[in-house]
Amino acid sequence: MKQYHVALAGATGAVGAEFLKLLEERDFPLASLTLLASARSVGKTIMFKGEELPVAELTEDSFTGCDIAFFSAGGGRSKQYAQAAVKAGAVVIDNSSAFRMDPDVPLVVPEVNPDDVLAHKGIIANPNCSTIILLMALTPLHQKWPVKRVVVSTYQAASGAGAAAMRELEVQAGELLAGKPPTKEIFPHQVAFNLFSHNTAINETGYNEEELKMVKETRKILHAPELAVTATCVRVPVLRAHSESVNIEFVGERPTVDEARAAIAAFPGVILVDDRESNTFPMPVDATGRDECLVGRIREDLSHPKALDLFVAGDQILKGAALNGYQIAELLIQRGVI
Amino acid sequence: MKQYHVALAGATGAVGAEFLKLLEERDFPLASLTLLASARSVGKTIMFKGEELPVAELTEDSFTGCDIAFFSAGGGRSKQYAQAAVKAGAVVIDNSSAFRMDPDVPLVVPEVNPDDVLAHKGIIANPNCSTIILLMALTPLHQKWPVKRVVVSTYQAASGAGAAAMRELEVQAGELLAGKPPTKEIFPHQVAFNLFSHNTAINETGYNEEELKMVKETRKILHAPELAVTATCVRVPVLRAHSESVNIEFVGERPTVDEARAAIAAFPGVILVDDRESNTFPMPVDATGRDECLVGRIREDLSHPKALDLFVAGDQILKGAALNGYQIAELLIQRGVI
Repeated sequence: MKQYHVALAGATGAVGAEFLKLLEERDFPLASLTLLASARSVGKTIMFKGEELPVAELTEDSFTGCDIAFFSAGGGRSKQYAQAAVKAGAVVIDNSSAFRMDPDVPLVVPEVNPDDVLAHKGIIANPNCSTIILLMALTPLHQKWPVKRVVVSTYQAASGAGAAAMRELEVQAGELLAGKPPTKEIFPHQVAFNLFSHNTAINETGYNEEELKMVKETRKILHAPELAVTATCVRVPVLRAHSESVNIEFVGERPTVDEARAAIAAFPGVILVDDRESNTFPMPVDATGRDECLVGRIREDLSHPKALDLFVAGDQILKGAALNGYQIAELLIQRGVI
Repeated sequence: MKQYHVALAGATGAVGAEFLKLLEERDFPLASLTLLASARSVGKTIMFKGEELPVAELTEDSFTGCDIAFFSAGGGRSKQYAQAAVKAGAVVIDNSSAFRMDPDVPLVVPEVNPDDVLAHKGIIANPNCSTIILLMALTPLHQKWPVKRVVVSTYQAASGAGAAAMRELEVQAGELLAGKPPTKEIFPHQVAFNLFSHNTAINETGYNEEELKMVKETRKILHAPELAVTATCVRVPVLRAHSESVNIEFVGERPTVDEARAAIAAFPGVILVDDRESNTFPMPVDATGRDECLVGRIREDLSHPKALDLFVAGDQILKGAALNGYQIAELLIQRGVI
């Protein structure tokens, strides 16, 4: 079996740590693994399969002989170094937003648009976490009952802003319980026992960047440039799984609840959690640490004859980031792309 | 100036405490104040304007000579005792869901449908907290640009389930920070660092009771039986202010963002919090303890030519419950109903 030289840029971050776990636990066919980070992490080592691997500095020369380069070091680093990896012959799987809307870059959720990897020109982009989680619920329906419009409100975990943001949520909760003012370093607003509009920049439309990602990326991944999407993105005091309340209007007749449940339950990477009797529905604590997204609260919209409501929860670091990127690498191998 | 004999059923609860604060701070023209609760609270006293008032048992004989009876002791007590208060000559302002959809009972948000109090037959109902907060954002628009359809997702605080539920959120947060399993007594699911579908019973439509209240009460209060509403109600780890993400489709052309902002800013009981530059929008910590609901994130819906998106936050115990009930009493005096 062929083995691959893999590089991981951003090895010391929260998503990087999950990439390493996946490469280890799933026995990725590794010829070598190169850990890359910024200069200040050089000298650190990370345990991988019982070995202490050194962290090297991410530079343009980091990718000689590399087959696959995972980038999870922020958009700036991706823009600066991804082309060097491509020139060295690697396929880049980029977790940042740097190239997602580039028409030459496939934007891929393996369960949704796997064939798009075939058209890559060196870089494949991993979608935004909220987009991936939305699509895991939307696609099983859209494949059978084309979707016309989506109204989504998110309940996003602290992890989307990194490991330090997760710690900030816990530190603030402890401070507030002790009657102290919360320390704000990562988020602009108190996050513990509070929630706030996603703190990315807002453009002239009034939408913030996170919301526009959900709008644009959903259309690109589904090859549905006319699909109408509105999103409201909200940060909530949850550690690492995002939830989304989704209203879906279909082009034609809506599926029945049973039809929608069957389609969702049959879709890979999704678990139906929809028990009205026991009030058991998707919750972030249940989605945390799981590969699958949880979908439930499926019901006919009382306000529209062609719409359904549902609720989805998915681990932001796993399917929302590292797992989806890892699955893109597996897909590249399965399809003989590398 | 006329003074009124007032009774408060449910004086020892979280909403009862806010009623007492309002009666005290706003100098309600009281001839007398009778505090009522269940038998197990008899013997307790509550400080009111420097006096220790005794708590008496709520019975059918509690209302002799009473002008206004506030009920905030749960739907069961309202059903059992409200008619006794009416027979004794009182006007009942009921905070429970017992009579809200009764065609003989006005359901009133004073800023929205004040004239409805004139038709009362002894009982006036205080709407559900999520409904009131939605209407404070919706009504200023609906009055000028009639609304066709609303898609709302809530972010509901623990206080909606009472004072013990607020304590449970804090206790669980402390337990989880200490690495201990969370103690679940009030809520069926972990609430700290988690969220879950509102834990009221779900009927054959798939909607839970809280969601159906938002649908039905909104129509009744606005006298708009055809208004299309879908709601998804979610409990989040916030202490006492509810937030709601609202998508509003209008019958005709939508207002511009500036027109919508002006209408909302001019509406009594609402504060416009909508600064895109500084990312300042409604947050539950800012709504907590405030009389006004905060409205912002107003933007043209990219997915629909006749729709707007917005976000609202309001104190669940104040405008969502006690304050709205208190304002109904003020309205009764202003209109000469009592």
